[in-house]
Amino acid sequence: MNLTSDLYIVGIGPGNLKQLSREAYAILQEVEVIVGYQRYLDLITELISNQQLYSSGMRAEKDRLQKAISFARSGKKTAIISSGDAGVYGMAGPVLEYINQQKLELKVEVIPGITAANAAAALLGAPLMHDYAVISLSDILTSWTLIKKRLQAAAGADLITVLYNPRSSRRQSQLVTAQKIFLKVRSEKTPVGIVRNAGRQQQEIIITNLQEIPVQKVDMLTTVIIGNSQTYCQNDQLVTPRGYQL
Amino acid sequence: MNLTSDLYIVGIGPGNLKQLSREAYAILQEVEVIVGYQRYLDLITELISNQQLYSSGMRAEKDRLQKAISFARSGKKTAIISSGDAGVYGMAGPVLEYINQQKLELKVEVIPGITAANAAAALLGAPLMHDYAVISLSDILTSWTLIKKRLQAAAGADLITVLYNPRSSRRQSQLVTAQKIFLKVRSEKTPVGIVRNAGRQQQEIIITNLQEIPVQKVDMLTTVIIGNSQTYCQNDQLVTPRGYQL
Ligand SMILES: C[S@@+](CC[C@H](N)C(=O)[O-])C[C@H]1O[C@@H](n2cnc3c(N)ncnc32)[C@H](O)[C@@H]1O
Ligand SMILES: C[S@@+](CC[C@H](N)C(=O)[O-])C[C@H]1O[C@@H](n2cnc3c(N)ncnc32)[C@H](O)[C@@H]1O
Repeated sequence: MNLTSDLYIVGIGPGNLKQLSREAYAILQEVEVIVGYQRYLDLITELISNQQLYSSGMRAEKDRLQKAISFARSGKKTAIISSGDAGVYGMAGPVLEYINQQKLELKVEVIPGITAANAAAALLGAPLMHDYAVISLSDILTSWTLIKKRLQAAAGADLITVLYNPRSSRRQSQLVTAQKIFLKVRSEKTPVGIVRNAGRQQQEIIITNLQEIPVQKVDMLTTVIIGNSQTYCQNDQLVTPRGYQL
Repeated sequence: MNLTSDLYIVGIGPGNLKQLSREAYAILQEVEVIVGYQRYLDLITELISNQQLYSSGMRAEKDRLQKAISFARSGKKTAIISSGDAGVYGMAGPVLEYINQQKLELKVEVIPGITAANAAAALLGAPLMHDYAVISLSDILTSWTLIKKRLQAAAGADLITVLYNPRSSRRQSQLVTAQKIFLKVRSEKTPVGIVRNAGRQQQEIIITNLQEIPVQKVDMLTTVIIGNSQTYCQNDQLVTPRGYQL
């Protein structure tokens, strides 16, 4: 593979190395530097030989992107990684914004990945077979008022709804509020799928319903999928029919 | 790779062989039979050696899934493929529904893939960095009233909106109606990205705005992404800020 860009923003998929795209894998093997949050570098150790690695902590996005950009500007082929797809609550946005703001000349490419919604859905069956919304419950960067408005809209329009960042040690109440918003318009028995650590070693899958979401089991490594009014559960699988005559 | 299931429902990604996950690629190499719509089999010819192939036409989903299931039940390791992710308007739902309805005993696995939304977003920059909705404009299996309701909800809640199946020779008006719904609440200058044949040979990318969508250029091989109120266009890229201090 011929690396024609200076900087690659690479989605590594949700978990194991099998879930990387072939392109992402080839690029990570061939770059000179890989920059990422330590937890994500740990997921790809097997493909690392002599690439230089740079990692920093959880909220240090700005530090990482500046480092990645300066490696790339110094002439080293560089990749900065996100879990899942880098364009979904990942590094693609901040990196491109920073490069634009600083008016830097750099050839950058975003390499898509399998995002948590699709990985979780595959483990649950086929819950995302109809129109859906993807909403992050993290109110660190977004006002809770706006998030609630989006939850209400998704609930009211019978969209299947995928919740990212559903709950953390500091943010306990958001998921419960989301549940209440959906219970106002969707049946208590609406199937809900919960996937923790999709594709990773501690993978856990829970199939439950809107009324009974085991909130304590949800954390920031978890994706929650709330079915629409047609979603059903059969043989421990969630399926949303699309209306084919079978 | 050890094939432990009888039937694999495999998302092959939007276009070229580099966009398959490593797992999808390995499975397709090792199964005995691959079933799919001819256009999608054509995208993976390079990985085919002596697998048996079965294809049928565009609306023949039921024929294909029945064939795939009967191959699998006859003891042949079988894959049925969808473009993108099989769980997003793809074959995963119908296959699982059919197996459940017929009460068949079969070990089935859904292998996730990169869906068109993420592939298109990566080519456009980083438009999906905030909450988004995925809506199909096809009213063959869904009532147009419900689709309009979902478009209105997404527009009103300032969700980035990804339109699948935006327009075909038989369905010309839906995209124009969608555009009008968004124009009621979102600025005429809202950035819109249009990606046709992502990852395929005739790939085309258009960056435009809500007022000026070149409707004639959109067809069923196209994904349309409508930005939210914060999305901007810079250096021919769409970026939706998430609110990081950079
Ligand atoms: C900051 S977002 C990053 C999303 C990532 N860029 C993607 O496309 O999947 C983190 C959230 O993604 C979800 N997530 C990411 N990886 C996951 C996994 N392996 N299993 C379950 N959820 C995951 C969780 O909701 C988590 O709180
Ligand atoms: C029946 S849906 C199948 C979606 C597919 N399962 C996925 O996850 O991408 C077909 C629609 O997906 C979108 N699509 C699929 N592949 C595409 C590609 N390579 N480029 C652009 N859009 C694509 C288009 O909107 C098309 O009308």
